[in-house]
Amino acid sequence: MKVGVLGLGYWGPNLVRNFLGNNNVSSVVGCDESESRRSFITNRFPGVGLCSDFNDMLKMDLDAIAIATPVATHFKFAKAALDSGKHIWVEKPFTSNSDQAKKLIELAKKKKLKIFVDHTFVYTGAVRKMKEIVEKNELGDIIYFDSVRVNLGLFQHDVNVMWDLAPHDISILNYLLPNKKVVAIAANGIANYYDHENVAHISVYFDNNCFAHFHVNWTSPVKIRRMILGGKEKMLVFDDMENIEKIKVYDSAVEMKTKESIHEALVQYRTGDMYSPKVVQTEALALGVEEFIASIIEDRKPLTSGLEGLQVIKILEAADESVKNKGKLIKIS
Amino acid sequence: MKVGVLGLGYWGPNLVRNFLGNNNVSSVVGCDESESRRSFITNRFPGVGLCSDFNDMLKMDLDAIAIATPVATHFKFAKAALDSGKHIWVEKPFTSNSDQAKKLIELAKKKKLKIFVDHTFVYTGAVRKMKEIVEKNELGDIIYFDSVRVNLGLFQHDVNVMWDLAPHDISILNYLLPNKKVVAIAANGIANYYDHENVAHISVYFDNNCFAHFHVNWTSPVKIRRMILGGKEKMLVFDDMENIEKIKVYDSAVEMKTKESIHEALVQYRTGDMYSPKVVQTEALALGVEEFIASIIEDRKPLTSGLEGLQVIKILEAADESVKNKGKLIKIS
Amino acid sequence: MKVGVLGLGYWGPNLVRNFLGNNNVSSVVGCDESESRRSFITNRFPGVGLCSDFNDMLKMDLDAIAIATPVATHFKFAKAALDSGKHIWVEKPFTSNSDQAKKLIELAKKKKLKIFVDHTFVYTGAVRKMKEIVEKNELGDIIYFDSVRVNLGLFQHDVNVMWDLAPHDISILNYLLPNKKVVAIAANGIANYYDHENVAHISVYFDNNCFAHFHVNWTSPVKIRRMILGGKEKMLVFDDMENIEKIKVYDSAVEMKTKESIHEALVQYRTGDMYSPKVVQTEALALGVEEFIASIIEDRKPLTSGLEGLQVIKILEAADESVKNKGKLIKIS
Amino acid sequence: MKVGVLGLGYWGPNLVRNFLGNNNVSSVVGCDESESRRSFITNRFPGVGLCSDFNDMLKMDLDAIAIATPVATHFKFAKAALDSGKHIWVEKPFTSNSDQAKKLIELAKKKKLKIFVDHTFVYTGAVRKMKEIVEKNELGDIIYFDSVRVNLGLFQHDVNVMWDLAPHDISILNYLLPNKKVVAIAANGIANYYDHENVAHISVYFDNNCFAHFHVNWTSPVKIRRMILGGKEKMLVFDDMENIEKIKVYDSAVEMKTKESIHEALVQYRTGDMYSPKVVQTEALALGVEEFIASIIEDRKPLTSGLEGLQVIKILEAADESVKNKGKLIKIS
Repeated sequence: MKVGVLGLGYWGPNLVRNFLGNNNVSSVVGCDESESRRSFITNRFPGVGLCSDFNDMLKMDLDAIAIATPVATHFKFAKAALDSGKHIWVEKPFTSNSDQAKKLIELAKKKKLKIFVDHTFVYTGAVRKMKEIVEKNELGDIIYFDSVRVNLGLFQHDVNVMWDLAPHDISILNYLLPNKKVVAIAANGIANYYDHENVAHISVYFDNNCFAHFHVNWTSPVKIRRMILGGKEKMLVFDDMENIEKIKVYDSAVEMKTKESIHEALVQYRTGDMYSPKVVQTEALALGVEEFIASIIEDRKPLTSGLEGLQVIKILEAADESVKNKGKLIKIS
Repeated sequence: MKVGVLGLGYWGPNLVRNFLGNNNVSSVVGCDESESRRSFITNRFPGVGLCSDFNDMLKMDLDAIAIATPVATHFKFAKAALDSGKHIWVEKPFTSNSDQAKKLIELAKKKKLKIFVDHTFVYTGAVRKMKEIVEKNELGDIIYFDSVRVNLGLFQHDVNVMWDLAPHDISILNYLLPNKKVVAIAANGIANYYDHENVAHISVYFDNNCFAHFHVNWTSPVKIRRMILGGKEKMLVFDDMENIEKIKVYDSAVEMKTKESIHEALVQYRTGDMYSPKVVQTEALALGVEEFIASIIEDRKPLTSGLEGLQVIKILEAADESVKNKGKLIKIS
Repeated sequence: MKVGVLGLGYWGPNLVRNFLGNNNVSSVVGCDESESRRSFITNRFPGVGLCSDFNDMLKMDLDAIAIATPVATHFKFAKAALDSGKHIWVEKPFTSNSDQAKKLIELAKKKKLKIFVDHTFVYTGAVRKMKEIVEKNELGDIIYFDSVRVNLGLFQHDVNVMWDLAPHDISILNYLLPNKKVVAIAANGIANYYDHENVAHISVYFDNNCFAHFHVNWTSPVKIRRMILGGKEKMLVFDDMENIEKIKVYDSAVEMKTKESIHEALVQYRTGDMYSPKVVQTEALALGVEEFIASIIEDRKPLTSGLEGLQVIKILEAADESVKNKGKLIKIS
Repeated sequence: MKVGVLGLGYWGPNLVRNFLGNNNVSSVVGCDESESRRSFITNRFPGVGLCSDFNDMLKMDLDAIAIATPVATHFKFAKAALDSGKHIWVEKPFTSNSDQAKKLIELAKKKKLKIFVDHTFVYTGAVRKMKEIVEKNELGDIIYFDSVRVNLGLFQHDVNVMWDLAPHDISILNYLLPNKKVVAIAANGIANYYDHENVAHISVYFDNNCFAHFHVNWTSPVKIRRMILGGKEKMLVFDDMENIEKIKVYDSAVEMKTKESIHEALVQYRTGDMYSPKVVQTEALALGVEEFIASIIEDRKPLTSGLEGLQVIKILEAADESVKNKGKLIKIS
């Protein structure tokens, strides 16, 4: 299989490296307007083909194209790639809005091509282990999902902090709890520097007794990557800044005794042991590449397809509308 | 000076111990209906007087009474104590609503008595050090204030998690940034077990380019007590779970270059050294007791008086209204 | 039961508080030459009797006397207390040398009195949990015991850092591994400020395939309290600076495959899950007091008697001789 | 410049990648007997030349050869490379004994070739920053150096844990404190699995009031990489497991007041603020490669030459002799 990578900036070289490392990929071609980015690749990966014009890449004999460019350009490049018969890999967030996402999904369906959206975290050992624990129902009913993703980050020019950071957490939420239906979104935040919010808090209401919250911030002096899943039986903490003990499962819970009188001790809590399962350390991107290639070979939907990309975009759109209206509740259909 | 302590449950014994330890206090009397709580005190502090009926305490020759009972009873006991001519110390939150708070403030003014609200954190070495740093303007303009206070906590029967935990953070915010005017509140959360929310997120809008957020949760498997002050020059993190390095000041900031083109690198960031100032370890409650006694002797307003208590209650009332309406924006007059 | 406490400096007030809190203790008397220390006690514990002369205390109607004075005076005061028919509680380290320890043990035996040596850590929830795990043989054969106890500590005038800090770790080692026989000691270190070492490393050789090491340091900028028990099946880490997860058990081990060829892969390792058991948080000193009182009432040897105190002193004596001779191996009989 | 890399196992591919990334290197050739290791390289770095026989590599037109093979083979390969006129890069530890090291240094001198020993840590941002702080004399006189390097590591077949892990710490010590003269070594430890020690403690005596200790362990369930430099004015902690705040400088110290009486408060301590300087994050290996290439181009001694390699070997030899004799003091000439 032959793969092209469009955009050799920050993330593109990682794609090049991982496509090179995949056994089903025989050659990789990179494309970027910038000569310095192209020579960066030449130095590190002497055998990789290069071009400076995307139209040249479209004419090459390639099976798939990976798009690692700014969000605003995803639709244009993705559409062109699909039109020229290539399977596509698109960096997150999938598109700038849900209309674009729907159009690409429609086009791929018509052309019988695959769309893979790079929700990388779904391919990490930690999130896989969380999925396993949730599926075994070890935590009991999930009552809340809390995520913090903050650091002193590079401002994106075309999107706010929600579009930059929250796709990771939303895609993890959707992967872990596919049966929880989101019904409404409220988002609050502030844009201290220019039009785009640099701090945001997204509250997510579900159709049952569950609640989620995403805190994203580009202007935090410390890097925090923490997720808490509160269950009725046990609770789980995923701290991605930990080198080893990334996941901890606490045998802690709140116990309702009775509802007879609000002045009685009707709510108690217990704490017990904690355990931290071993997490597979394979690079997520390598597993993502494997899944993309396998979905093409086996002609099946990849785990993170355009549909999963669209679900994330819908929540981001609602969050955008809410944050512009100071937390106004936005219903999700 | 002679002091009575009403309520010898969880916090009352700490008040007894700290009033005993104050040089201007000659005797301490405790009051609780429960015999086991009274004998708990007798064992540990053999010389402390005890009674079981608050009316008996009101008749004693006491200068001041400290009220450490459930919130719903604060107003009743505080009013009776003021009526009988005693200065009062009231645990946080001050009262169940702002009307009660205003009435007590009015009554104390008429009677020329002091009200001290126990916003303990204002008396910690860490918050004092933060105040010092903010006042020196070391951080530059504060653009956001973020606080997380979560753990597996005992549910209160008469209030939700916001009334239980957020008073700490709101009182710190008010103390650190007295000139920032709160204009509106939006709160989201969930009540998983009974009527009262166990998870809540409070967003605070100010009249200028600043934003605050409080995350409180009674159902977290891990205890987090972290506050971030984002400044235009430097940023500060206060982690109360750290034994030693509670405060860290980061020489990190976002730098606006130009607004010429949104596609240019108009926002950059820099990171530099971090320092962690030494923090005085004196017990906050001892300093609070000292301030209360001094305000009586010197006949002056204590640092955390009824007014400071009222400001906290106003925000909690607005948060309550908002959370019942899924984040509806509530204006603060 | 009536108890006297000699020495009201740093640790004495904790003894007063915990004897007061014990249900079998009816009254507590404190003794210290310093008036300021006596009035410190009067303020905090108004009902406690006080005296300034130890001879007065000896004449009082007391069942037991706790000795919390500098090490060099332990023997003198302990002997006088036993001579006057009192059971004794002695702070660690028991005595200045093993001869003194043996004499006190002999005297107590003759007088049918109890000696309790305050190896406080043996009464902590964490060490109790470790004992439970070791006794269940969950770790397999213990191959090494590694302990670090360092901080910026107050220099003791009459002993070096080994006599001040290592008794904790040696008493834990003896409690956890009573069947491991120490055969030799080697200690290295340095005295940077005056005659007494402020940094020391004690290596302990056993009569089988096991090794222990204690690192103690009064001049470390950071406080570290960590112990590792390396087992052939699992490994345990006890970090006393952790607030909650003090003990972690790692399902990690080294696996010997074959000894055929030293150039083959004969040693492999595996890592698995980790768990952190819940640890009881009761104050160790309260449990120590309980054990002391119970040993008197039930007329039996307390868990940490003079014998356990003597074992610690023997290792400290050997370490002293070794460190003065730059690590010379000292045999233990 | 053209460079060959011998040994494409664990570390070799990193050398290949970093030589490729250096601007003065035009081509890289790899050599390994194992076909799977060679095809690993082909996949990732399609343009790199490969051979399976070191004799073929010796005949190639190469300027330098990097040797990343087991320690026991270093001398043989290094000698052959020098004999054929190539500059050499040798992984740590330099050789199996000091005689071999001296012979290679002699040979390189005669042939006017460079020897670079890969003491990687000397090229990290953290150690560079430590050097800067020590050279400014910010810490005052260094009174002790304490290092812990433990984890569950792959056992080496031809060396014990000291030869595997301690070279890092010894090379850092030599780099930071070049004027401290080592006079004697004492080492204790245990070999639980086969002939080679898996746990070791190395004490280092200097010719003045300074002491160093290295703790290395292949059988620890947790990974610890910590170094403490105790100074008379300030103290520094380097924790390599920290992602960001790797270095912390504590304004803490012990203060001698007087020596009049050992029973007076002659030793006190003070604690103040802590700061954590920003550390450059450039990959150390890239900087090491740069220094090696620069030393060839500029015809000068590289920072970590054969001499620095020899100094490390001397300490390891002494430690080996000591550990075989249970801590016997071994003088260093």
